[in-house]
Amino acid sequence: MMLGNGYASSPASRRRRGRPRGGGGSGYGFWQPQSLHHHQQQEISPVVPPCTEFDMAYFRAYSHIGVHEEMLKDRVRTETYRAAIMRYQHLISDKVVLDVGCGTGILAIFCAFAGARRVYAVDASEIAVQASEVVKENNLSDKVTVLLGRVEDVSIDEKVDVIVSEWMGYILLYESMLPSIIFARDKWLKPGGLILPSHASLYMAPVTHADRYRESIDFWRDVYGINMSAMLPLAKQCAFEEPCIETISGENVLTWPILVKEVDCYTVTIQELESVTAKFSFSSMLRGTCRTSSKFP
Amino acid sequence: MMLGNGYASSPASRRRRGRPRGGGGSGYGFWQPQSLHHHQQQEISPVVPPCTEFDMAYFRAYSHIGVHEEMLKDRVRTETYRAAIMRYQHLISDKVVLDVGCGTGILAIFCAFAGARRVYAVDASEIAVQASEVVKENNLSDKVTVLLGRVEDVSIDEKVDVIVSEWMGYILLYESMLPSIIFARDKWLKPGGLILPSHASLYMAPVTHADRYRESIDFWRDVYGINMSAMLPLAKQCAFEEPCIETISGENVLTWPILVKEVDCYTVTIQELESVTAKFSFSSMLRGTCRTSSKFP
Repeated sequence: MMLGNGYASSPASRRRRGRPRGGGGSGYGFWQPQSLHHHQQQEISPVVPPCTEFDMAYFRAYSHIGVHEEMLKDRVRTETYRAAIMRYQHLISDKVVLDVGCGTGILAIFCAFAGARRVYAVDASEIAVQASEVVKENNLSDKVTVLLGRVEDVSIDEKVDVIVSEWMGYILLYESMLPSIIFARDKWLKPGGLILPSHASLYMAPVTHADRYRESIDFWRDVYGINMSAMLPLAKQCAFEEPCIETISGENVLTWPILVKEVDCYTVTIQELESVTAKFSFSSMLRGTCRTSSKFP
Repeated sequence: MMLGNGYASSPASRRRRGRPRGGGGSGYGFWQPQSLHHHQQQEISPVVPPCTEFDMAYFRAYSHIGVHEEMLKDRVRTETYRAAIMRYQHLISDKVVLDVGCGTGILAIFCAFAGARRVYAVDASEIAVQASEVVKENNLSDKVTVLLGRVEDVSIDEKVDVIVSEWMGYILLYESMLPSIIFARDKWLKPGGLILPSHASLYMAPVTHADRYRESIDFWRDVYGINMSAMLPLAKQCAFEEPCIETISGENVLTWPILVKEVDCYTVTIQELESVTAKFSFSSMLRGTCRTSSKFP
């Protein structure tokens, strides 16, 4: 997910932490969800994906404050969610909301401000401890219940009218958080309930970036007068293996983006996410060099 | 080690990879050094520190091209080494040189250009494979022998006149590469031999950075109108736990730097590096807020 403009900060101070990597796997076993409001926990769901070591590492990565600071400072992201919650205030007011992966609790608090009767804010990362403190500090403990645990493991007393979540990862589906939304939808959402966001689309477009190529690849042809072209194969391999998470200018984009994948959060299934394949062709009025590899992350 | 100005590159494209973390530990056992010039390997040294899993991870981190690109683009660093080698050309010409942790081989090649009779370029990271290719591509294979392995493990036929190495890490001693220099000096350097660099000094100074504090700490007091002061303890803890590797302006420095540690590479011992303690006091004509924690990395 490209970070948009946030609070003004100098490049030197911006910590490019990157979104942690998520994913499922084989079982871990002893993860016990906790209610930070002393909610009763009962195991109900028959098909709960196990919590793996990989998952635990993912949650630990989100206990670091830096990634939350970056996400909050993404004004495009945060203000869009706030605007959406206010736009649908009529469907949130006096209703029950579930915030999946609540982080610092901001979306849950936005929903409380929009008049929600109760908000269950769930996060498996230790940041939920701070979220609980924030809720208390804002005198919202009667409305917002923070649950430390996976949404697959927590138990709440009631179905919900609304699910809100900021689950999108790089290239939309990185972090594999969407399966948790699907789980929450199927287990907790009342028929006809609202999901925010309701849809997501993944677009792709070929880009050119001659400067970048020159800096990182062509650079090796003359290094302080030494011919280091022998580095080129490794340089190209590393350049393609490592995805670039950044904002580029319109001049670098060679064609209009094409739609590669659409997600309807009301109907998407886990199976649909196991593999994403698309055929596409581009035609451009521009001339530029576009380098590709045969693997897409 | 603060990276100075390098090739012009936009902030968006600069990958702040950071220097990998090194260190010794308990044994690993099966690391076999290889000569990329088919040099004969014999175990001679009686006290060789074992190669640990931590060491292996360190070497693997240096197999990624990005960290080498960053170091090479640090013109202050690279041109200083080149200038030093040329300044001491009279002690390098027709002599035998050992480059400890040669990376892409640039210092070894500088020494070959300065007239060295032979250069042993040693690196335990797989980047040594590329270094060997670079040497071949520059028709220096008769002068420069690249050895893939730890300097603690490799065997060469002769003592050396010169040791050159870029071993310095963040806060000078991070990466723990200096013990390898000490080992190489004690095992391979002829009496009266040259070490480049010969000395290193660690300076410290209190700094103030109100903007940074405001961006990362005070930020939590008002987040889209929500009081998130409950995040402050975690924010401060994370801010102090994570060292900032960056260039700051003179206005942020509150006093003249003081000397905390001096290293004489001709005489330094391993024991001297186990712990670095210094007492210091600062007096400043400036007024500013300086925040400290009770632990220094």
